[in-house]
Amino acid sequence: MTLPARLAVPYVVIAPDSFKSSLDAAALADCIAEGIRRAMPDAVCRLAPMADGGEGTIDALAAHGGKRRALQVRDAAGAPMRTEVLMDNGAVIETATIAGYGAAAMQATPVGQRATWGLGDAIRQLLDSGIRDIAVGLGGSSTNDGGAGMLVALGARLYDAHGAKVPPTPDGLRALARIDASGLDSRLASTRLTALSDVRNPLCGTRGATAVFGPQKGVTGDEIAQYDAILARFATLAEAATGLAARDVPGAGAAGGLGFAMALLGTRFASGAETIAARIGLEQLLEGAAWLITGEGRSDAQTLDGKAPYVVATYARLAGVPTTLLSGSIDPQALPALDEVFDGGCFSIAPGPVTLADALACAAWYATDRAAGLARLFAAARAARPA
Amino acid sequence: MTLPARLAVPYVVIAPDSFKSSLDAAALADCIAEGIRRAMPDAVCRLAPMADGGEGTIDALAAHGGKRRALQVRDAAGAPMRTEVLMDNGAVIETATIAGYGAAAMQATPVGQRATWGLGDAIRQLLDSGIRDIAVGLGGSSTNDGGAGMLVALGARLYDAHGAKVPPTPDGLRALARIDASGLDSRLASTRLTALSDVRNPLCGTRGATAVFGPQKGVTGDEIAQYDAILARFATLAEAATGLAARDVPGAGAAGGLGFAMALLGTRFASGAETIAARIGLEQLLEGAAWLITGEGRSDAQTLDGKAPYVVATYARLAGVPTTLLSGSIDPQALPALDEVFDGGCFSIAPGPVTLADALACAAWYATDRAAGLARLFAAARAARPA
Repeated sequence: MTLPARLAVPYVVIAPDSFKSSLDAAALADCIAEGIRRAMPDAVCRLAPMADGGEGTIDALAAHGGKRRALQVRDAAGAPMRTEVLMDNGAVIETATIAGYGAAAMQATPVGQRATWGLGDAIRQLLDSGIRDIAVGLGGSSTNDGGAGMLVALGARLYDAHGAKVPPTPDGLRALARIDASGLDSRLASTRLTALSDVRNPLCGTRGATAVFGPQKGVTGDEIAQYDAILARFATLAEAATGLAARDVPGAGAAGGLGFAMALLGTRFASGAETIAARIGLEQLLEGAAWLITGEGRSDAQTLDGKAPYVVATYARLAGVPTTLLSGSIDPQALPALDEVFDGGCFSIAPGPVTLADALACAAWYATDRAAGLARLFAAARAARPA
Repeated sequence: MTLPARLAVPYVVIAPDSFKSSLDAAALADCIAEGIRRAMPDAVCRLAPMADGGEGTIDALAAHGGKRRALQVRDAAGAPMRTEVLMDNGAVIETATIAGYGAAAMQATPVGQRATWGLGDAIRQLLDSGIRDIAVGLGGSSTNDGGAGMLVALGARLYDAHGAKVPPTPDGLRALARIDASGLDSRLASTRLTALSDVRNPLCGTRGATAVFGPQKGVTGDEIAQYDAILARFATLAEAATGLAARDVPGAGAAGGLGFAMALLGTRFASGAETIAARIGLEQLLEGAAWLITGEGRSDAQTLDGKAPYVVATYARLAGVPTTLLSGSIDPQALPALDEVFDGGCFSIAPGPVTLADALACAAWYATDRAAGLARLFAAARAARPA
């Protein structure tokens, strides 16, 4: 890759996450680049769509290398689906595309009947291909099964009190009495597993997977306590079967507890955004840059917990490049903290008081317009008479 | 006034109009200055709140010279009220404060019973004081009387078919049969009258005062045609009585037809924003400036019809100073045209999808935050590595 070492025009790096429900990271980066060129036609824009281990992880990495490989797996409802993993000195799997909200069968299936079978299916096929370095992006799951589905797909067996097999779904785990982990794929012992996540929650309790992330998956009311108790018992039995303690590992509560099951398999946890920034060579991309623009759907205090824009901004600061945040919305309460990180200002794409529906529907238009405005100001400030 | 000739820090001119219903121009300028200082503590900010002949005209002018003088006049409902005019090589009267929406008595009085008596009251008292140079800001009226109230207060008499006096309100004018202009104050002939307005509409017809501005004053449905016809007959009789034609003068339709009555008195029409920019010395203020920020409640295609931000931007362009527009909302459809004028970008204060009520309630907060973000980007762009 040639680096723009001494350009006569501003070199701008565009490294946003996605606007969920409206623009994926690549589309948003395209909009920002179009806006910048409208105001600074000579600017050199380098697009580096980001992700944080959730949806878009494979896309972000694939733009900079590696090869996509198709696999047949089960979706969250257990129906067969085709998915893609990225092969690049090992493999990268994306939970969001396998056990996320996208698959048609899943959408009619309640959360109590969803599981992470598909992750186990994918890992097993990669092991069959001789892959021994597998990273799993944990964000964007629709499941709350504690990773039981993945463990079953990799050879674990779940039984009720009568010795009958139970399905690895939250509803199935209600009857769980015993786990036999002896059938777990022995190749896992010699495999380097990495979980990409920005979530550091434990499996259970008030900060656990069910309490914090369950409601957005459809776990409501009394079910929250029930499913949390189901996962706690599953954890006790799984920890007994493997001889490992994992429920309180930071990240065990990621992806509906898939983090817990991965921790049982000896998985190393890494920041999704940090890993992606490193793999796409963000440090090199920033060499010689005059400006970095990042963004995400909603920016608030959580942004500073290692979300992609935060990670990108820390890289930029080290490189001496100012960072502007362009998001769907900026939490005004969090702005003072955000301002500490985004030294090039924090902005929303909104052209005025608009509804969320309008902002989602017009996100590409608004993002392009706002990026153009920011670029106009950037260019005007540089051209203005010196202080 | 000392000009900041060779400052070692950026010199920024802040010259917004008001955000109607939330922040007057001075308060908005304060917010912007606070935001700028948050990001650029050393910046020198010069505040030049603007107006366009409507509400805030006297405040904008008074910040740069002249003296306020209290007068007793009638409000739009005919109730006595105290108002202020500005004395500064002549006098400046503001229609918005005399026949606007502010006075308590007016608010219970329908538009059919409102009139511009108070303008005549003020002019007469200024004439009594020997003033022979009077400017009237026409914006922000709540009346639709064709200026009949002002003419009556200055000595004109209105009669019905039986020779009885009729009130100079739209409902009173229904019975109008004859106008006697012989009693008009003779001192007006030797007085220089100036109307400050950005409205170039005629008195009557589809582009007239009633059709275009009546609805926002409460003229609805069939009343629009009725009141338009009433003003047309009033104009015919008034023109006959004075021997002057004025109904099609550009601006005759301003302030519910007050422009028409002023035109009958030999008034010269001038752009409100242009006049204010000239009187506050905007050209001198811009000398040595690195950046100008302006703004208004809503920016759309009408902004380019001589509204304050447009006028301010034309001054800045001549001075070689980039202009950023910070408004309550930016019409996305008008952005391409706005971008031609505001070379430092067009931005809304909105931090994301918000309701109009929220934007109005939090306008000061949001405006300060956005100004800080813009200043951060401005400073970052200047400090960024050169192209």
